[in-house]
Amino acid sequence: MIIVMKHNATPEQIKDVVSQVETFGYKAHLSQGTERTIIGVVGDDRPIENHTFELLSGVDKVVRILQPFKLASRDFHPENTVIDVRGVPVGGQQLTMIAGPCSVESRSQLMETAHAVKEAGATILRGGAFKPRSSPYSFQGLGEEGLEMLAEAREETGLPVITEVMSPEAVPLVDKYADILQIGARNVQNYALLHAVGRTRTPVFLKRGLMSTVHEWLMSAEYILSGGNHQVMLCERGIRTFETATRFTLDINAIPLLKQWTHLPVFGDPSHGTGKWELVSATGKACIAAGADGLMIEVHPHPETAMSDGAQSLKPEKFGQLVADLRLLAPALGRTL
Amino acid sequence: MIIVMKHNATPEQIKDVVSQVETFGYKAHLSQGTERTIIGVVGDDRPIENHTFELLSGVDKVVRILQPFKLASRDFHPENTVIDVRGVPVGGQQLTMIAGPCSVESRSQLMETAHAVKEAGATILRGGAFKPRSSPYSFQGLGEEGLEMLAEAREETGLPVITEVMSPEAVPLVDKYADILQIGARNVQNYALLHAVGRTRTPVFLKRGLMSTVHEWLMSAEYILSGGNHQVMLCERGIRTFETATRFTLDINAIPLLKQWTHLPVFGDPSHGTGKWELVSATGKACIAAGADGLMIEVHPHPETAMSDGAQSLKPEKFGQLVADLRLLAPALGRTL
Amino acid sequence: MIIVMKHNATPEQIKDVVSQVETFGYKAHLSQGTERTIIGVVGDDRPIENHTFELLSGVDKVVRILQPFKLASRDFHPENTVIDVRGVPVGGQQLTMIAGPCSVESRSQLMETAHAVKEAGATILRGGAFKPRSSPYSFQGLGEEGLEMLAEAREETGLPVITEVMSPEAVPLVDKYADILQIGARNVQNYALLHAVGRTRTPVFLKRGLMSTVHEWLMSAEYILSGGNHQVMLCERGIRTFETATRFTLDINAIPLLKQWTHLPVFGDPSHGTGKWELVSATGKACIAAGADGLMIEVHPHPETAMSDGAQSLKPEKFGQLVADLRLLAPALGRTL
Amino acid sequence: MIIVMKHNATPEQIKDVVSQVETFGYKAHLSQGTERTIIGVVGDDRPIENHTFELLSGVDKVVRILQPFKLASRDFHPENTVIDVRGVPVGGQQLTMIAGPCSVESRSQLMETAHAVKEAGATILRGGAFKPRSSPYSFQGLGEEGLEMLAEAREETGLPVITEVMSPEAVPLVDKYADILQIGARNVQNYALLHAVGRTRTPVFLKRGLMSTVHEWLMSAEYILSGGNHQVMLCERGIRTFETATRFTLDINAIPLLKQWTHLPVFGDPSHGTGKWELVSATGKACIAAGADGLMIEVHPHPETAMSDGAQSLKPEKFGQLVADLRLLAPALGRTL
Repeated sequence: MIIVMKHNATPEQIKDVVSQVETFGYKAHLSQGTERTIIGVVGDDRPIENHTFELLSGVDKVVRILQPFKLASRDFHPENTVIDVRGVPVGGQQLTMIAGPCSVESRSQLMETAHAVKEAGATILRGGAFKPRSSPYSFQGLGEEGLEMLAEAREETGLPVITEVMSPEAVPLVDKYADILQIGARNVQNYALLHAVGRTRTPVFLKRGLMSTVHEWLMSAEYILSGGNHQVMLCERGIRTFETATRFTLDINAIPLLKQWTHLPVFGDPSHGTGKWELVSATGKACIAAGADGLMIEVHPHPETAMSDGAQSLKPEKFGQLVADLRLLAPALGRTL
Repeated sequence: MIIVMKHNATPEQIKDVVSQVETFGYKAHLSQGTERTIIGVVGDDRPIENHTFELLSGVDKVVRILQPFKLASRDFHPENTVIDVRGVPVGGQQLTMIAGPCSVESRSQLMETAHAVKEAGATILRGGAFKPRSSPYSFQGLGEEGLEMLAEAREETGLPVITEVMSPEAVPLVDKYADILQIGARNVQNYALLHAVGRTRTPVFLKRGLMSTVHEWLMSAEYILSGGNHQVMLCERGIRTFETATRFTLDINAIPLLKQWTHLPVFGDPSHGTGKWELVSATGKACIAAGADGLMIEVHPHPETAMSDGAQSLKPEKFGQLVADLRLLAPALGRTL
Repeated sequence: MIIVMKHNATPEQIKDVVSQVETFGYKAHLSQGTERTIIGVVGDDRPIENHTFELLSGVDKVVRILQPFKLASRDFHPENTVIDVRGVPVGGQQLTMIAGPCSVESRSQLMETAHAVKEAGATILRGGAFKPRSSPYSFQGLGEEGLEMLAEAREETGLPVITEVMSPEAVPLVDKYADILQIGARNVQNYALLHAVGRTRTPVFLKRGLMSTVHEWLMSAEYILSGGNHQVMLCERGIRTFETATRFTLDINAIPLLKQWTHLPVFGDPSHGTGKWELVSATGKACIAAGADGLMIEVHPHPETAMSDGAQSLKPEKFGQLVADLRLLAPALGRTL
Repeated sequence: MIIVMKHNATPEQIKDVVSQVETFGYKAHLSQGTERTIIGVVGDDRPIENHTFELLSGVDKVVRILQPFKLASRDFHPENTVIDVRGVPVGGQQLTMIAGPCSVESRSQLMETAHAVKEAGATILRGGAFKPRSSPYSFQGLGEEGLEMLAEAREETGLPVITEVMSPEAVPLVDKYADILQIGARNVQNYALLHAVGRTRTPVFLKRGLMSTVHEWLMSAEYILSGGNHQVMLCERGIRTFETATRFTLDINAIPLLKQWTHLPVFGDPSHGTGKWELVSATGKACIAAGADGLMIEVHPHPETAMSDGAQSLKPEKFGQLVADLRLLAPALGRTL
């Protein structure tokens, strides 16, 4: 932490800040510039709030030096984390394809899709039983019945399943069925929920919030990690920007940035990232080319009748084509699929 | 809902769309333009998803005509909703000043602040007992102990109290103490929580999400209203933009826009909206000049030692000065304070 | 400038950075933290690019300490700049009302509007002769003919005139007619144009770019100031955000922030800032309450036939009402009108 | 254009709108919904402003149906435009690599870089002679001297050259030297400049503005095309968002979207799109995987001494590695390099 004094700060003000720094048990390191004095705070100052010093008289601003996250940081854990999901390794050399419908709508819809995505090359099945919907008048998911169908689809196809959990009290229920607990974009700062999944030992798939900075997102991962659950995957799914031609703006930069900053596996979700099925394959390939460890893709056998997200769902044959394209690309990127 | 056909849509494609519209029980109204055909869907099509038609062949896009919210809309409820909070009317001619510390930190800190804001002109006391924090290493609030202190402060000062609730399972507990349940910006699309507070009959203070459009925010209000709880207040608290000189960008436009679109009371929160105490008074006056029914202001007797949000907290005397300024402004705006 | 070394930087890397700092003639000030070493650069390092040090091995990042602008800064010019525009003082205690049509469309339209806004209380007349339009198929302005009409309107009403200049080569022509040269939002980083108006001695009205941070905007002002033209006014006119319910998001925070950071006069433009005439009066009052020195308002006698920006133009009587409202507010804010 | 009437519009108001539509020579097509009446305007209504109808009484809003651009649209020009740049085809099956320094700094720096990028696989040389800089105190480019060096580098290496033009009056000068005229992000709505390059017959490289929607960007292309210059290339270079961990957010979605909407060649610029050289290769590969026709990459032999954009410049060997990687990827994408 660096404390920058104002242009016209007096020697007394500087002395007061230094003594305040020392009160907290840190060392203060003074540096007299030509226009400003700056004071370095020596020690792990993560627990201190900026305003503690920013509000002292004569102080202009406080600049943070240390990254706020530790457990998620590659600084302290240089090797990639590889997570075992019922035998499927996630985060290693092999790419992971998660596919399935946005919502579980019926037994037949789920089974048809599960078999189709497995055949097309998916290794994990997705499907929502509890759905966050912006309108109270929209379909809200089948609930536990949907979870049972997912378990049945897993039994039939052998694919591990991932499904979203939306509230702390639903964690035990969803955890009974799911191989991966998904935290949706709108819950990325639902701290009660992050605490709850951090207490489980089930892998967590943490989507980026549509307005989360990469820093904040990693802090949300830190919540789960600090609860003792070390199996966290991150998924870039598009952020909100001024552009309205697509539903969100997939932040492709975030993928190689995360691979630098953190050891956790990184996914791309081009279905939400674009909101338009016509753009899903192109941007899915882009995510892999940028270094993602896998994709999450919404697939529906009859998108026009889907109860949610039909506009961004691929039909199984399009998904199959995408996997085939990725099988051509993977070796050129040093990956397998 | 208007269905816009592609430039080169065939008569068969148009016929198919029309027949699909009729399948859902709506009437289709065809309009042949010089470059495009458009098809109007006649009926309350709110329950239909856009993609149901967007994915039919020959369709270019779907345009919504109806506002997605109903209960929150002034169209169907032209008069202002005025909410009675233990005798304090909110949403009428009189301005409402909510003030207090970001977090309840100790009995003495809360009592000192409560007395000070009352004397300065506040009519409702705020204070957080459960705190959403972006870092798991930061102070997370005193929990029920904090709620008890709030109840005690109410008893001592007569001010009704507002405090945040962060998860559905905490609603019964918080509801036992609070006169207004606050939903924070990061929970504006925590639908499980919206459902839970919609089932109470306690007034709800719904902050705008930092990533919410005004439409989405009103849809979140609709969740609460459709649960049968009609006492909802809205609070603009700044959105996230590219500007980093302030913590958020207070969306002043949203205030008169909401007064047009909805009958619910509208507040401004210049503390979060700016993140800098030096800007709070100026932007607080701006909110009132723009038509807000009241303000929520963070006040702390010793901001530099605050456990959260110190940088944006006013000292009691600054808050008193703001109220004094507003008392001068109010008559010029046809309001009382 | 602070150079933050990487977690694992070696003593040799640190030594290299220090010696590089000294090569440029600065002093290096070393501070050894528990996790990182930081190196302070002592001297006016504004001319140095960040990457000069950021690319040296072992360096994590560079943090700037000094504000990048000087002439615009209140640090070096504490008193408000008051600009005399043909006898109208701008930036002092008295509020300035600039009003008129978006585009000069015809002699009669301009004269009718000029007389109307004068009567309603405007002190400066606006009108565009050269119009930046996003479509090449839209009305582009009357050019010099429009400038002549503006001069005639000035003669008839006594109001000084402000009009936009869009390219360096048009500066001499526009400067012949205008009392204030307006730089539009889309030209805020058109450096050739900033240079050109910086060489005149005519007051410049610099609108914020829809994508400019406050810092960048002040740097654009610095371009004009460093050309020797000290008469610069700033005008907040809305930034682009994710919100689509209004045309732009008027950044109300920027107004008090600018009054802290700079000595230049600050205006609000609620017409562009909202894009909806129904919101103009409320947000215009908000700008003044937040500390703006004046407003720029689009006024048109028949907005529905306007060749540009009709949706955000007030009719003269609505503008008159706004001025009347502001006359009530001004004394409560310590201003006159 | 669809005119949506208010909930409570009267039959007289509807009649007035219809008659106004007919006054402009269009046909009005009435559709009576259950909650609202909507009026379709039949004809090419691109020249009409929205507010012409939006301001009539009883009207709620106007919705546009037609895309605002025509010459740039794939609707009216289905085949890809392939541009011949001194024998280098741009926009066909073969990928185009544009590389070189941000600024031309000296003869030796340019020649060293030109030879290096040619050897590494670039087919077009970039280099800035006139530099848009946010600070008036930064290096502004060598001007005509720089252009002469570029011509000399072309002679020596055989590579066509691209360089930026910043003002209309500089177009004749820059056009004398350049094979492609670059319009920078900050000038994407500098209409005087767009007009000027539209009058030349030299290929134009139009960067996206950092706050341009894809629609607006294509309208800027339309300015050039409507001037009679049909050789326009588009370059995605990152937009401004709330994320500050990277300099801009490269909008990967825009690449496949543009390939759908327009016939013009599409490039990616991962140097500006990320602002960090460590992210350039990964995101460059992503652009190509998403369907871009080529890349523009900043290359500098000694980035730490670069006079601009050093932090985002690749050294020649890193650039060579990127081209080698792309040569592996290209066949898997049906492209050549």
